[in-house]
Amino acid sequence: MGADPRFFPARGPFRLAALAEAVGARLVGEGDREVSGVAPLALAGPDDLAYLEGRRHLAALRAARCGAVLVSEDFAAAAPEGCAVLVTPTPQLAFARAAALFHPRPAPVPGIHPTASVAADATLGEGCEVGPFAVIGARAEIGPGCIIGPHAVVGAGCVLGAGSILRAHAVMEHCLAGAGVVLHQGARVGNEGFGFVTTAAGEHVTVPQVGRVILGDGVEIGANSCVDRGAGGDTVLGPGTRLDNLVQIGHNVRTGRGCVIVAQVGIAGSTELGDFVVVAAQAGLVGHIKVGSKARIGAQAGVMNDVPPATDVVGSPAWPARETMRAFARLRQLATPKKDDKTGGTP
Amino acid sequence: MGADPRFFPARGPFRLAALAEAVGARLVGEGDREVSGVAPLALAGPDDLAYLEGRRHLAALRAARCGAVLVSEDFAAAAPEGCAVLVTPTPQLAFARAAALFHPRPAPVPGIHPTASVAADATLGEGCEVGPFAVIGARAEIGPGCIIGPHAVVGAGCVLGAGSILRAHAVMEHCLAGAGVVLHQGARVGNEGFGFVTTAAGEHVTVPQVGRVILGDGVEIGANSCVDRGAGGDTVLGPGTRLDNLVQIGHNVRTGRGCVIVAQVGIAGSTELGDFVVVAAQAGLVGHIKVGSKARIGAQAGVMNDVPPATDVVGSPAWPARETMRAFARLRQLATPKKDDKTGGTP
Amino acid sequence: MGADPRFFPARGPFRLAALAEAVGARLVGEGDREVSGVAPLALAGPDDLAYLEGRRHLAALRAARCGAVLVSEDFAAAAPEGCAVLVTPTPQLAFARAAALFHPRPAPVPGIHPTASVAADATLGEGCEVGPFAVIGARAEIGPGCIIGPHAVVGAGCVLGAGSILRAHAVMEHCLAGAGVVLHQGARVGNEGFGFVTTAAGEHVTVPQVGRVILGDGVEIGANSCVDRGAGGDTVLGPGTRLDNLVQIGHNVRTGRGCVIVAQVGIAGSTELGDFVVVAAQAGLVGHIKVGSKARIGAQAGVMNDVPPATDVVGSPAWPARETMRAFARLRQLATPKKDDKTGGTP
Repeated sequence: MGADPRFFPARGPFRLAALAEAVGARLVGEGDREVSGVAPLALAGPDDLAYLEGRRHLAALRAARCGAVLVSEDFAAAAPEGCAVLVTPTPQLAFARAAALFHPRPAPVPGIHPTASVAADATLGEGCEVGPFAVIGARAEIGPGCIIGPHAVVGAGCVLGAGSILRAHAVMEHCLAGAGVVLHQGARVGNEGFGFVTTAAGEHVTVPQVGRVILGDGVEIGANSCVDRGAGGDTVLGPGTRLDNLVQIGHNVRTGRGCVIVAQVGIAGSTELGDFVVVAAQAGLVGHIKVGSKARIGAQAGVMNDVPPATDVVGSPAWPARETMRAFARLRQLATPKKDDKTGGTP
Repeated sequence: MGADPRFFPARGPFRLAALAEAVGARLVGEGDREVSGVAPLALAGPDDLAYLEGRRHLAALRAARCGAVLVSEDFAAAAPEGCAVLVTPTPQLAFARAAALFHPRPAPVPGIHPTASVAADATLGEGCEVGPFAVIGARAEIGPGCIIGPHAVVGAGCVLGAGSILRAHAVMEHCLAGAGVVLHQGARVGNEGFGFVTTAAGEHVTVPQVGRVILGDGVEIGANSCVDRGAGGDTVLGPGTRLDNLVQIGHNVRTGRGCVIVAQVGIAGSTELGDFVVVAAQAGLVGHIKVGSKARIGAQAGVMNDVPPATDVVGSPAWPARETMRAFARLRQLATPKKDDKTGGTP
Repeated sequence: MGADPRFFPARGPFRLAALAEAVGARLVGEGDREVSGVAPLALAGPDDLAYLEGRRHLAALRAARCGAVLVSEDFAAAAPEGCAVLVTPTPQLAFARAAALFHPRPAPVPGIHPTASVAADATLGEGCEVGPFAVIGARAEIGPGCIIGPHAVVGAGCVLGAGSILRAHAVMEHCLAGAGVVLHQGARVGNEGFGFVTTAAGEHVTVPQVGRVILGDGVEIGANSCVDRGAGGDTVLGPGTRLDNLVQIGHNVRTGRGCVIVAQVGIAGSTELGDFVVVAAQAGLVGHIKVGSKARIGAQAGVMNDVPPATDVVGSPAWPARETMRAFARLRQLATPKKDDKTGGTP
């Protein structure tokens, strides 16, 4: 079963020879054969192209009904009879590229919906699509080929680079964004951060939050995620950084290039991430720490100190992964009653 | 004190005999007596019906000022003088049903608000209410008696069953939903999932997300929760499944019937839940695991492996509940200094 | 570098003598000298006023290029030559007040945007600003000087006090709010809580949620946070209480004055907080417990029992902070292999 055409009309069909060339794979089989869509291995039918993600799905490949499969050299022989084979060292990446041929990101349908509210002094590049009830504020500058979805808001003075997308209900304010940026449904960018000083009497006095949000090229912000603007100075997400849904980014956080921040992570104010840092789901990072490039933070970790580059940490409070795993194994062992000791516990 | 009539105009008053019959309780006292509203035991006055939740509220019952109370046989004698008693084995359920007589879910006020944007080829059943600035996309099919709240969005091609409700700012896209579905304020359904492949150079290449979201009859999605559409194939929430607020559901997650997912839970891609699974608040489930029917996941648990049916797990990483409780007790014991050991620690 | 004038036009410049008087500091240096903005110490230039947060930023002060600095008596001597010194016992608070002189909260621009939908019987005080696509429901009462942002919704019957602000996409329903209340982008107030009873057959029967939300003066609700209305009776946030982003507040929760609830915290139904309680990020509190005034809950804590006043708890399950730290240290020690013990572990 390929994609539902009511939501995802597919281009194609494509000849396997053309697909192989487009994604840099070596075709084993007839080049003239065609496929008309892409699908996961378990769901793919004779007209679909699938891929093998790794050894643990080998059984699924042997049972597959797909017309063609992207697979690495080692597993090519496992494809069932009648299934064409496209050999590539990176099957998942090749699949992403093939899928994009069938389902390219929908291009903007140029025009401003009659219900949209666009400031007279805002500027829009060529070929932008502005949806119903979208709001574009004074002096905003929107590059060519952007899509501003229904109810999306581009605040006064904001800059949005070419080919960017605001999905339904996304909001950007006090923000300068590069090209190819995507804000998913309900993303909140440039909101006032949680900045106040408490008097001796317990009154919270707001510190004016007069910084911005700077989004590098290709940054993506997940649904209902929040990126607060700087208190003074900027909150910065480096080029290619991707946030999943329901993520919280505090004021003056900075990330390098290509960081991956999974769902429900929270990063407190002024913390800095290097390049290609991965923060797994529901982890939390306190403010004012530094996480080195290529560090990996485990799911639900609670990070309270700097993390050196290329280091894995897990747990709350977070320790190096190996040490934490040993501690949990030890704890489990201590808590297991010994056979000859009904009171349980100590070895 | 009953409900504030400015927000919740009440039907009634109702005779106790009629209420008892409607909810299947046995009335002890005069059937002609009337009550005009429902309220919690601690707040209820002489015109209100309340209920006793369990033994630990017995003192509250003895001190209650309510006109009538739903109570189980065992505790019926504890009702104060002057308070009529309605005996039922399930007081809370009976209360829910009685409350719905006073406060039925508001019916749609049929009509399309003049500011709403409805595609010419969308279809709406009889008696739908469409609020201000709602957007209904091309070819959308909305069943009879639905309420589409202010700023809600029903995307192109979506199907929504009879009697469903989208509250203010809810969004559904790429979604087929059954009857009696409720999306609360700001719910995001059918957004693009977090699907990409990273090249050796660190570039994240999006995998087109060409699946759907399928919502069974009676599914409810809490405020600002997110349900990503399938990458290929579908994300499926089974009939009667309820999500609380700020929940994250990744692409291709599947639940069975009647699951309960409490606030701020995250479930990663392709994980499958059986029927009647309960996931308590802030728990996280990694992707590609299976949780058996009637399993219960504790609050803040971090579930990294399959969970058998009807099993309780807690902790992060999650273990069976009993074992985890023992481990924590043991840890606490190890950390308690002994009286004769000032260095603390080992028993 | 001060604030970007495209987003934050500054008042001023101000004479240092005037600033010192306004914030209650003692000026050391020429009173006629002027500064034209505020900035963090590390970014401030010769025209900016900065402040020293504490001893750990002393090196930054010595290297600073700011024109003037707010500093406590002890560190006044560390200011570099040419930098004017304003001495105050509370530099950060004085900075907040000075910053508000340069950047006062933008006043409403009175008027109702032509696209807004305002019910005929709603009342608005003097000088309110109502943005594009805002919705104000029947009988709503909005005090003078409020700002209702783009797409914000004030539900039927709601009351909003003077000088309050709803940012873009904020929603309030079934809510009575005091003066000076702020709902940030996408905040959801007054949504139906997660209230249902499950039958023996597994059907979830909704309990009508007929309570309200009461917000005290000066309450702030962060972006995409959710505050459910009471089931019966009210959900109450006391005066001055501040919620960060993505916080979940269940039905019938009550807080006292000036509580601080940091990002991604969840508080389950009917739990009560005293005054000035601080709940750090990602913590979770079960329902039906009491947290005493000035208690402090650590980040990611899982609080399952009452917390006495002025007590610090951390961990999940939460224990008193000192005990937990000892337990974790002990666990770490147990998991560290001894030099002469290659099997690791036991002391």
